[in-house]
Amino acid sequence: MSGYVRRLAERAREAASIVARLDGAVRRQLIERMADTLSQRRAEVLAANSEDMERGRASGLADAVLDRLKLDDARIDAMAQGLRDVAAQPDPLGRVTRRDVRPNGVVVERQRIPLGLVAMIYEARPNVTADAAALCLKAGNAVLLRGGSEARASNAAIAACLHVALRAEGLPEAAVSPVADPAREHVLELLQLTDLVDLAIPRGGESLIRFVAEHARVPVIKHYKGVCHLYVDASADIAQALDLLIDGKASRPGVCNALETLLVHRDVAPGFLRRAVERLTQRGVEVRGCARTRAIVPHVAVATDDDYAAEYLDFILAVRVVDDLDAALAHIARFGSDHTEVIATQDAAAADAFVRGTCSSAVMVNASSRFNDGGQLGLGAEIGISTTRLHAYGPMGAESLTIERFVVRGEGQVRHAESRG
Amino acid sequence: MSGYVRRLAERAREAASIVARLDGAVRRQLIERMADTLSQRRAEVLAANSEDMERGRASGLADAVLDRLKLDDARIDAMAQGLRDVAAQPDPLGRVTRRDVRPNGVVVERQRIPLGLVAMIYEARPNVTADAAALCLKAGNAVLLRGGSEARASNAAIAACLHVALRAEGLPEAAVSPVADPAREHVLELLQLTDLVDLAIPRGGESLIRFVAEHARVPVIKHYKGVCHLYVDASADIAQALDLLIDGKASRPGVCNALETLLVHRDVAPGFLRRAVERLTQRGVEVRGCARTRAIVPHVAVATDDDYAAEYLDFILAVRVVDDLDAALAHIARFGSDHTEVIATQDAAAADAFVRGTCSSAVMVNASSRFNDGGQLGLGAEIGISTTRLHAYGPMGAESLTIERFVVRGEGQVRHAESRG
Repeated sequence: MSGYVRRLAERAREAASIVARLDGAVRRQLIERMADTLSQRRAEVLAANSEDMERGRASGLADAVLDRLKLDDARIDAMAQGLRDVAAQPDPLGRVTRRDVRPNGVVVERQRIPLGLVAMIYEARPNVTADAAALCLKAGNAVLLRGGSEARASNAAIAACLHVALRAEGLPEAAVSPVADPAREHVLELLQLTDLVDLAIPRGGESLIRFVAEHARVPVIKHYKGVCHLYVDASADIAQALDLLIDGKASRPGVCNALETLLVHRDVAPGFLRRAVERLTQRGVEVRGCARTRAIVPHVAVATDDDYAAEYLDFILAVRVVDDLDAALAHIARFGSDHTEVIATQDAAAADAFVRGTCSSAVMVNASSRFNDGGQLGLGAEIGISTTRLHAYGPMGAESLTIERFVVRGEGQVRHAESRG
Repeated sequence: MSGYVRRLAERAREAASIVARLDGAVRRQLIERMADTLSQRRAEVLAANSEDMERGRASGLADAVLDRLKLDDARIDAMAQGLRDVAAQPDPLGRVTRRDVRPNGVVVERQRIPLGLVAMIYEARPNVTADAAALCLKAGNAVLLRGGSEARASNAAIAACLHVALRAEGLPEAAVSPVADPAREHVLELLQLTDLVDLAIPRGGESLIRFVAEHARVPVIKHYKGVCHLYVDASADIAQALDLLIDGKASRPGVCNALETLLVHRDVAPGFLRRAVERLTQRGVEVRGCARTRAIVPHVAVATDDDYAAEYLDFILAVRVVDDLDAALAHIARFGSDHTEVIATQDAAAADAFVRGTCSSAVMVNASSRFNDGGQLGLGAEIGISTTRLHAYGPMGAESLTIERFVVRGEGQVRHAESRG
């Protein structure tokens, strides 16, 4: 342990105590200023990104990684707009969320306060640098940012813009603290700082997340993967179900809220599967099915248990015909990842049974799995999606970076009468 | 690893999926029945407790431990009443806690669901067995109970009563699963079961809690200690402040919400401290003060930084005279444990500044620190107090054993228009 990260975290923690005391209006203005700065200084950011892209191509990064890494004017505009959306969100801090008067007259209030110092450990996409900083600041926290080495120039250029905005508001740059030194030992050191770091959020591939989960002594919120299911019920509107299937599988297969498995009620399987396979094939999706699926659409490949457990992140779909809703729920309980499950049904009782029967972080009734996203669900942006059934479950916005505490107001009440003078 | 605890946890996890689906009315009736059974079978429980007490005395347990261990009719009545209070709490599950309609017409709801399987690791007080089981079941969870070996007969007798009630409701006993084998390796094994245990809550002495925190791979919510402060502001009602001091320090010094340090504004220090020391001395409290304290009440002992950091859990109080509210907050930031802080003041601005200036889990304005307790704050009972700034902060009732997930209802909405057929 070099102590480099501890010193960084100590300064960030001091900054956190300043950020925690800022008015909501000041935090909002700060994040808007960050958006402006990012927009105005885009030339520097794009130049830094070109450097990362060149190095990435030279070192043979996969096309998908290069695509996530790449910035252009449109992506910088989107990043700035993301910051403005976060700025415009209601202030998650300060207001009384509940109030209860006890029989002795004591008033018990709940109030949200910041977590303190959040550590973000992530790969590839440089927009996470801006999103994570904005969400943490919106919630009154400071943030340690440990991005991937493949994006280091882009991340540094974005952080420099954020620092300009912090300085302009008279605030310490340490409120947004990049871990600039790329040595892996720094991540390990960071994950041991239980006296300074309140929460670590890993975001990226499963191996990164497992590394963080295995080595952390600080609390971690994470999701490993999204094995998302669409169950087409006997009462489904077939045209609607087909749209949900194509949107879920083919609109962007590389993301965690994309569908990986289709479950179809046997009563509608023949009609549905023929049309589904036709449209999936048009969109370049390979289908792998169970025996009953292949009895209907014989040319598709065989699906094994490994397929049902897989997060393909690709143009591949596993399919299974099920006897009923309970069988669909049993499949999800066995193979699911607590991420996102969808039911297509026109039967309110079936919808209720499906919602009650799964404990995933997001359950969709007649809506695309691709809506499991902080922006889409109204959180402004997201710092990650949690499938850890603790603190936050599903997409995490600014409110997920706060905690509710107790404020108790009395007029001298004591618990034991004999304490009175 | 013997696998003993894994098999226990697997059965408890199966039971959890049954408990999670019970109606609120059934969970309520189950807990009421537990209270009845405990009350009816008290002879067995008292006999088991006598056995623990005899063994405890023979092995030289401290009087304070024996006192926590001891059961009598009044304590069994209190335990049964605690269960009835938990049963009568509003159902934390199922209802829609928030609702938002997105511009595309999709309805985003939040809904509380159980955590799953909670592991309780605790010492001495046998009532924790009943309280923890009731709170977990109220919130639709199963629970693993690992009590201290000094209370093993009492805990087994109480668990037997709970099992009678579970059987009477046609539910699996495994919903309340005691870890009967006292070997310490079982705790270690339990703390590694990341695929089965959603949350571990240690409750007891600091060494137990540190052991759990250091060895756990499952999420842990805990508090190490309560170094609770009373700040007597310049504008305090002196008689009220004296009552808060005596209640906080002397009514039950061995608990975590007892006061450990008194901070007094210099303007009121002379008058307040003379009266305070007189009343504290009458109650058998030893006072240790800073130089300015000793200039006012010269016969008190010297307080060092070790005193300000101490959780005495005894009839001892550390005292410091401070220049103003900011100095009080700085002291709390340096020595506090995020547990409970109290201000005595008649000045609303000072109260607000104090509440804003501390991030402890409970802040009291003109109310005793001893109110930081789930029962006192309206939660029915508590499974523990969290000073982990994640998930729950302060006393944890049934709601803290649930998590809010997303339920999204649409009419076939997709994210990308080109997904439509």
